[in-house]
Amino acid sequence: MNAIQDRYPEPFAHCYGCGAQNPNGWQIKSYFVDGSYVCTQQVPPEYTGGWSDSMYGGIIASLIDCHASAAAADAKGRELGLPDDATLPRFVTASLAVEYLAPTPMQVELRLSAVATKVDGRKVWISCDVIPDGADSPTARGEVLMIQVRD
Amino acid sequence: MNAIQDRYPEPFAHCYGCGAQNPNGWQIKSYFVDGSYVCTQQVPPEYTGGWSDSMYGGIIASLIDCHASAAAADAKGRELGLPDDATLPRFVTASLAVEYLAPTPMQVELRLSAVATKVDGRKVWISCDVIPDGADSPTARGEVLMIQVRD
Repeated sequence: MNAIQDRYPEPFAHCYGCGAQNPNGWQIKSYFVDGSYVCTQQVPPEYTGGWSDSMYGGIIASLIDCHASAAAADAKGRELGLPDDATLPRFVTASLAVEYLAPTPMQVELRLSAVATKVDGRKVWISCDVIPDGADSPTARGEVLMIQVRD
Repeated sequence: MNAIQDRYPEPFAHCYGCGAQNPNGWQIKSYFVDGSYVCTQQVPPEYTGGWSDSMYGGIIASLIDCHASAAAADAKGRELGLPDDATLPRFVTASLAVEYLAPTPMQVELRLSAVATKVDGRKVWISCDVIPDGADSPTARGEVLMIQVRD
């Protein structure tokens, strides 16, 4: 199954977080699985927060941002009835709000789980939970408004 | 003049974005200048957004987060009447909301300018503008609620 990010138009695939054309970036990958958008990511050990055993909030916000961008692209593609391997419309972030609910530990894989709560023209709203492996509830939650780039 | 981050307690100075104890991080520095909190930062060229000439939103959110943490620490220190070289209380992020107002260009220094809008016990609210060098208005704006870590 192609990752959503691998269906971005090449000129718009340079994002540090998720662009397949950025060899120095993280190149995160997002998938549509059973009605929600999923990304699993191991975070390098240098991304600590203030404490050396907690994760940097900036990378949590960054992962939410990129994953929401992918979710928006795919949700819009589904609304348009595009085939599964079609190039997707590309979205940019209008607003990103993150609540940090609890410290996120280091050295565990993170699971991002997102849903598109609304698609309205060029706007898509995404809600995203961040759940460390082994946790039974999210340690962070994002609400993101994405805007489709004009052709 | 000491940067605010250089006054963090050592056990809490490991943040990837701003910790003096993180040799692999950005080690951003924030200062109180003429009533507001200022940080200037050159962003490495790999931190592109979707386009190769626009900046990655994740790093913008990250810089706002770290700068707001510093502003909160210093604002609380001032409320407590601490001397200018005293170790500061340390804050963590409860919520971070970023509006992306316009694309932020690459290869220019960013200026973050923040104010503490309210200090109430262990809570401090920070508003932060991100202004690329040469721009006359912010390209992003953050509203952050920081919580003081208990001793």
